[in-house]
Amino acid sequence: MSKQRQLKLGAMVHGVGHGWGEWRHPQALANASVNFDFYKQQTQLAEGAKFDFVFIADSLHIHEKSSPHYLNRFEPLTILSALAALTSNIGLVATVTVSYTEPFQVARQFASLDHISGGRAGWNVVTSWLSGTADNFSKPEHPPHAVRYRIAKEHVKVVQGLWDSWEDDAFAYNKQSGEFFTPGKLHALDHKGEFFSVKGPLNIARSRQGQPVIFQAGTSEDGRNFAAENADAIFVHAESFEEALSYAQDLKQRARGFGRDASHLSILPGIRPIVGRDAAEVESRYQQAVELVTIEDAIVALGRPFNDHDFSQYPLDAPFPELGDLGSNSQKGGSDRIKQLARDEGLTLREVALRFSRPRRDFVGTPQQVADAIQTWFEGGAADGFIINSLLPDGLQSFTEWVVPVLQQRGLFRQTYSGHTLRDNFGLDVPVNRHAVELELAI
Amino acid sequence: MSKQRQLKLGAMVHGVGHGWGEWRHPQALANASVNFDFYKQQTQLAEGAKFDFVFIADSLHIHEKSSPHYLNRFEPLTILSALAALTSNIGLVATVTVSYTEPFQVARQFASLDHISGGRAGWNVVTSWLSGTADNFSKPEHPPHAVRYRIAKEHVKVVQGLWDSWEDDAFAYNKQSGEFFTPGKLHALDHKGEFFSVKGPLNIARSRQGQPVIFQAGTSEDGRNFAAENADAIFVHAESFEEALSYAQDLKQRARGFGRDASHLSILPGIRPIVGRDAAEVESRYQQAVELVTIEDAIVALGRPFNDHDFSQYPLDAPFPELGDLGSNSQKGGSDRIKQLARDEGLTLREVALRFSRPRRDFVGTPQQVADAIQTWFEGGAADGFIINSLLPDGLQSFTEWVVPVLQQRGLFRQTYSGHTLRDNFGLDVPVNRHAVELELAI
Repeated sequence: MSKQRQLKLGAMVHGVGHGWGEWRHPQALANASVNFDFYKQQTQLAEGAKFDFVFIADSLHIHEKSSPHYLNRFEPLTILSALAALTSNIGLVATVTVSYTEPFQVARQFASLDHISGGRAGWNVVTSWLSGTADNFSKPEHPPHAVRYRIAKEHVKVVQGLWDSWEDDAFAYNKQSGEFFTPGKLHALDHKGEFFSVKGPLNIARSRQGQPVIFQAGTSEDGRNFAAENADAIFVHAESFEEALSYAQDLKQRARGFGRDASHLSILPGIRPIVGRDAAEVESRYQQAVELVTIEDAIVALGRPFNDHDFSQYPLDAPFPELGDLGSNSQKGGSDRIKQLARDEGLTLREVALRFSRPRRDFVGTPQQVADAIQTWFEGGAADGFIINSLLPDGLQSFTEWVVPVLQQRGLFRQTYSGHTLRDNFGLDVPVNRHAVELELAI
Repeated sequence: MSKQRQLKLGAMVHGVGHGWGEWRHPQALANASVNFDFYKQQTQLAEGAKFDFVFIADSLHIHEKSSPHYLNRFEPLTILSALAALTSNIGLVATVTVSYTEPFQVARQFASLDHISGGRAGWNVVTSWLSGTADNFSKPEHPPHAVRYRIAKEHVKVVQGLWDSWEDDAFAYNKQSGEFFTPGKLHALDHKGEFFSVKGPLNIARSRQGQPVIFQAGTSEDGRNFAAENADAIFVHAESFEEALSYAQDLKQRARGFGRDASHLSILPGIRPIVGRDAAEVESRYQQAVELVTIEDAIVALGRPFNDHDFSQYPLDAPFPELGDLGSNSQKGGSDRIKQLARDEGLTLREVALRFSRPRRDFVGTPQQVADAIQTWFEGGAADGFIINSLLPDGLQSFTEWVVPVLQQRGLFRQTYSGHTLRDNFGLDVPVNRHAVELELAI
C-alpha cells in the first residue's frame, strides 16, 4: 500500500433522485427508479469515466408522505446483479440492513454477486433508522440505536466468517479420483452470539477479490466506531471542508486505535455537483435545481432522519423547534447534526429545511472550479474521494464528460482501470482466508 | 384461455448437475456452478430455442458429504437478475424458501427481478426439507412438515398481497402539480397472521406481468393441496407415464376443487433427455452417463430426501431397509415414493439407489424418439410441458439443436415468442390488482 494515494469516485445511482422534487425537471424520467435502461445508462457512464464503483442506497419502509424515490424502486442486490452482467470493471455497492436480515442470506447474496461480477461486490452496511420497518418484518419493535450497532457488529462478523468457509484452494476438481474438494478445506463457522446462531459453512466459495468490500456511513459515536473498526470505505455527508476534515481525522484516528492502517479506510463525502461550461450555464443550472426544491418538500425531507417526524406542525419562520431526544433512536448522527447546526447558527425551521434540501454551493461551477474543489478536499485530507449523488436529469453525464477529464489531466484520477475487482480499484489487497492463516501458523 | 394447448419447456440450469458425478465427465466444466459464462451460455441456448423459462433450484444447508452441486453455487435471485440483463423473452424462475425468509424481502426481490426483466420473474416456492438449515438461520429447530406448509400458505398470501400494494395506474407523474402518485392508489396490507405480521405497503410497483408466476413442486398430501391452490406451474418427478398421468389428474382435480380453471395449472415433469443422432450415439452417450454414477454416490444421493440419512450403514444387496417414519419430516413426498417403490417391486438398496441416480430410459433416444416420448406424455395428459434437467456437458445443447426443431415441425412448440413476459409465454392473463377490483365493485 505504498502506492501514491489515488482519488476514488463512486456514482450513486438513485432513480428519481435524492431530492424530493427532482423528478419534476422537464427532462427527468419520472419512472427512473424502476427503469432498467436508466440504471444501465448511468452505470455505463460511470464505468466509461473509470469510476471506482456505483452505489445503491436503500430503505425498507414507506408511507404516503415518503419521497418519490423511496416509494417505488429496485432492490439493491438484484439491480446490481443485473448491472454486473453489463459491466466489467466498476465496483457494485449494495446497501443492505443488518437489522432485518439473516447473515447467511446476506453473505450468500453478496458472494453470489461477487462471483457474477468477477469480484466487484461491496456491501454498504446500514442499521435502518425508520422504526416502521419493524412492522414490515414481523418484529414487535424496532431495535434501539445502541442495540442496532451491537447487531451490526455481530452480523458483519458472521457474514465475514461465512465468506471464508472455503479456502481458496479448496476445490481439487480431480476427475480421476472423484475428489471435488479437499477435505479439511471446508470450514463450519459454529457461531453462537447475542443475536445470531449460525453454523455454516456457506454454500459458495470466495471470489476473485476474496471478500466483498465493506462500506459504512456512521456519524454517531457508535456509528463512527463501527465504521472505523470494520469499514473499507465510509460514505459521509459534510456541510463544509472543515466538517469533512474533522470527520476524516476523527475516523482515521479511531481506525488506528483499532490497530488498522488508516490509509486502508477511504472517507468518501457524498456531493451533488452542478456543472456548467461557463458562469451563465452554471447559474442557470443551479437556479433550476433550487427552484425544484419547494419548502413543503424540504420540510418533509427534514423529517426523515427524525423517523419521518412531521415538521409541518411548527411555524416556518420561528427558531428551529426544541426537539429533545427526538431522532436519537433513528438516524442519530444525522439528526444530531441538524439540531446542532440550527443551534449554532440560530436558524429558523425554514432555513434549516432549505439548507438540507437545496444543493450546496461547494461543488457548483465550471469543470475547473468543481475540479478545484475536489482537489482541495482531497489534498487537504478532508476526503479520499467522493460519491457523486448527481442531480437529474444529466448530472452524472455533465460530471463525467466535463469534470473527470480535468481530474485526469491533473493526474488525480485514473485514465484506465489497472485491475478487475473493486479491491483492485481501491488498491486493497485480497484478504487472506482466516483458515489458511491458521494452517500456515501450524506448520 | 380458449387457445390451443401449448407445450411448455423450461431449462433447469444446474451448474455441475443434478447427478453426483456429472462433473467428472471429461468435457464437463468442473466449476460450472459458479461460472457465470456457463449460466449465460445455457440460458442463451434455451432462449434461442424459445423455451418458456430457465429454472434455478436451491438449498440452504451443506456439509462435507453434500453433492458437488450443492456445495458451491450461485444464489438464485442474483444469478437470474444477471441473466435478465442478457435476455429478452425467457422466463426466470428462482427457487426461494418460505421457511427461512421474510415475505417483505421475498416480495421485493422478486418484484425487482420482475421489473429488471420486463415481467419475466417466477417464484418456485419451497419449504426446505434439510433440518440442518435451521442451524444456519438462528432457529431453534426446523419446523415440522405440516407447519412448513402452513407457513407456505401464509407467506405466499402475504407476498402476493404486497405485490398489489400499488394499483397499476397509481403513478400520476404530474410534473406540473407535483403529484407523483394518486392518493388512494397505494395500499397497506396490514397482515397479522400465525407466522407473519406485515404492514406494508411494498416499496415497488407491479410489473408488466402484474405479479410473478408461482411454481411449486408438492408431492405430499399437504404439498399437493398447496400447489393445486396456489401454483401456476408444478415441477414434478415421475418414474413413468402412468405415474405422471396419475399425478397430473390428481392435481387438476384438486385445482378444480379450489375453484380454479385446471388449464391454468401446468404440470411440468423434470426429465433428463439423452439424445444421439443415431442408435449408436444414443447408446454411447447413455452408457457414458451411467458410468459416471458410482454406487457410492448413488447411496449418498438417496439419503437426501431423508434429511441426508446415511444409507451406507445398510447392506447393499439386502432388501431395502425398513425406515419407519424417516423422511416424513424432510422431503415427505419424495421419501414416501422411494419407500413405496422399494416395497412394491421388492428391490435391494443397491437397486433403489441406482434407479434414482441413473438417467431413466424414457427420454433417451434419437431426436425423433425423444420427441415421440414428449408428444405421448403431452397429448396423453401426463404433462403440460417439461423441465429439461439436462446432463453435462452438452445435454441442453443437443436437446435444443436436435429435439426442439422436431417439436416445432410437429406444431407442438413455438417457433417465435409471441409476447414478452413469462405470463405471455404461459398464456396466462395479467392478474387484476385486488384493490382495483374492489373499486370497480364499489361503483
